[in-house]
Amino acid sequence: MVKTFGVVGGGQLARMMITPAQQLGFQIKVLAETNDSSASLGATVVGDYTDLVTVRKFAESVDVLTFDHEHVPVAILETLEAEGFNVQPSSKALIYAQNKLLMRQRLAELGLPMPRWQAVRTIDEVDAFLVELGGVAILKTPTGGYDGKGVMVITEASQANDWFSNFEVLLIEEKVDFVREIAQLSARSVGGEWLSWPVVQTIQKDGVCSEVISPAPNANYDLAASIGKSIAEGLLVTGVLAVEMFETADGKLLINELAMRPHNSGHFSIEGSLTSQFEQHLRAVANLPLGATHPTKAFAVMLNLLGIDSENHFVENYPEALKVTGVHLHNYGKSARKGRKMGHITALSDESIESAMAIAISAKQALHA
Amino acid sequence: MVKTFGVVGGGQLARMMITPAQQLGFQIKVLAETNDSSASLGATVVGDYTDLVTVRKFAESVDVLTFDHEHVPVAILETLEAEGFNVQPSSKALIYAQNKLLMRQRLAELGLPMPRWQAVRTIDEVDAFLVELGGVAILKTPTGGYDGKGVMVITEASQANDWFSNFEVLLIEEKVDFVREIAQLSARSVGGEWLSWPVVQTIQKDGVCSEVISPAPNANYDLAASIGKSIAEGLLVTGVLAVEMFETADGKLLINELAMRPHNSGHFSIEGSLTSQFEQHLRAVANLPLGATHPTKAFAVMLNLLGIDSENHFVENYPEALKVTGVHLHNYGKSARKGRKMGHITALSDESIESAMAIAISAKQALHA
Repeated sequence: MVKTFGVVGGGQLARMMITPAQQLGFQIKVLAETNDSSASLGATVVGDYTDLVTVRKFAESVDVLTFDHEHVPVAILETLEAEGFNVQPSSKALIYAQNKLLMRQRLAELGLPMPRWQAVRTIDEVDAFLVELGGVAILKTPTGGYDGKGVMVITEASQANDWFSNFEVLLIEEKVDFVREIAQLSARSVGGEWLSWPVVQTIQKDGVCSEVISPAPNANYDLAASIGKSIAEGLLVTGVLAVEMFETADGKLLINELAMRPHNSGHFSIEGSLTSQFEQHLRAVANLPLGATHPTKAFAVMLNLLGIDSENHFVENYPEALKVTGVHLHNYGKSARKGRKMGHITALSDESIESAMAIAISAKQALHA
Repeated sequence: MVKTFGVVGGGQLARMMITPAQQLGFQIKVLAETNDSSASLGATVVGDYTDLVTVRKFAESVDVLTFDHEHVPVAILETLEAEGFNVQPSSKALIYAQNKLLMRQRLAELGLPMPRWQAVRTIDEVDAFLVELGGVAILKTPTGGYDGKGVMVITEASQANDWFSNFEVLLIEEKVDFVREIAQLSARSVGGEWLSWPVVQTIQKDGVCSEVISPAPNANYDLAASIGKSIAEGLLVTGVLAVEMFETADGKLLINELAMRPHNSGHFSIEGSLTSQFEQHLRAVANLPLGATHPTKAFAVMLNLLGIDSENHFVENYPEALKVTGVHLHNYGKSARKGRKMGHITALSDESIESAMAIAISAKQALHA
């Protein structure tokens, strides 16, 4: 039975796993990158997650190893698994969150809906794809991308030159003409129990999540959930799975990205769901029963707080922001940097999305004053 | 501006203050009694809270000193206050939570409703009070009592002998013929803002809180709140104040005990209120705006988990207990001991107390299986 969780990575996702671990009376340890990580409260080790010896020593101190991010080299995880350590999600699943090309290949095998895509190894192949798709496409590095990094809109094949000097093969995809972006959050336990939250609408700015509305208004909830389930089961995911999708004018849902961990699109669930994504992740990787995912209020809005500069921690404006009735304010305690995810705001309403949005915006304005 | 909270005492109340501190991006430090305290996650110092040097050193590392319990000697707090440290609630308020005789005297000055009471210095005085009140009364030590300790029902004056060997003066009170017990929770900020939660009903077993129902059905909410406000303002309380009261058949509310900190009767507020008592306590002592105290669902039930023996940590039965839809399970991570407060369960409902109770009881039974 799992009594001690080990999280590799000391970001805000690890930080927000500490609360449910503590609430349920479990131990939680964090392998952080730096001494002043966002999850420093639970950080028992500061070290390099790409070093086998460091990760193994950390794994020896916990009952299950799980993740704040998907950057631990698969070779390390495979070694630890061969040595008998409990890694959730396993390397067999995580590989698809690390490598977008393998992900596309696997989702194709499962017959799941995606933008048109292709693996490209030469500028000529890039050019051919561009021509076929009308002169514009999305180029992605197979690995290492996040929050808009490793993703580029291209209109000329030569734009791929730089990345080809670092990658033998790149992923090229159709630039989908979507009406909105949605994200399907769900969780699958080690024993195979699967449960989803209602699909949410996400609004990105400059490639970074800015706003989440739960549930996504007038969405095809069943279709989104069935895609989430197919991926969770088809890729043997354990823990929380986020599936980011494009919704097109004709109602198609096309899978964009995957994350196998709690995800920015699920932060609303801390207050907005009977079970938060962070508690659910712990339950799932510990093979405990999953918790009910009913909304606590009909509507939830989440706004990210992005860094303003290297000085502002938002705390300065709490005396005004905390006057806003119904605001749930989360501050990740990170050092300040322009554009960095510093925290988020959640507001709930039983009346309408608009009334939740009004609360959230009012607090955000006070914090930005 | 407060950025680092210091909590003296490492029990479950300190533990549950860690969550909102962390959520709002504040630092929180705990001066704990032992290495394996319930609040060990935040424990930066292990030491003796009755030692001035230890408490002063701890106070130097934080912006405001607050408390998990009321046992820090007033002389220490007065010294620190004179030295300019920020202590909330201040010694001037805390003295009334530490000393029940001073509390009775002060509440009498404020004209607040109480059981009949008297300070007694001799067995003869005890006997006279007993005779006057029909042969039964409650005897209390002025200081040091909690969870049923330092409180005794007496029918013979000689029962006071033991305590008189340790206390010059004792408190004797009418044994109130009550129909139920209720608790009024509220908070007052350093700047004087005051806000209450709806009064709750508490059910004690063997002098220990067993069950809390929020709101107390058919209570005199306005009267209870006005008593809470009079005490908070009259005693210059800062932070959370719990006022435990007896309700009599003729609708009187008689003040029993006070606590100037988050309180067992307010644990339901973690999920059951827009602002939990733990977040509110931090806001109040940091002189931030208080958060709205609206219920998130119409009804809440909280059941304490009391220790079964020295082995059982309840975690063993999570695979069954966590199947219960809607249960919020809190485990304080304490070493097991029969009768000890090990954790609690909260369940909410918009329909009825009964439906919240059914969830809570079902989870409790699974945990006790």
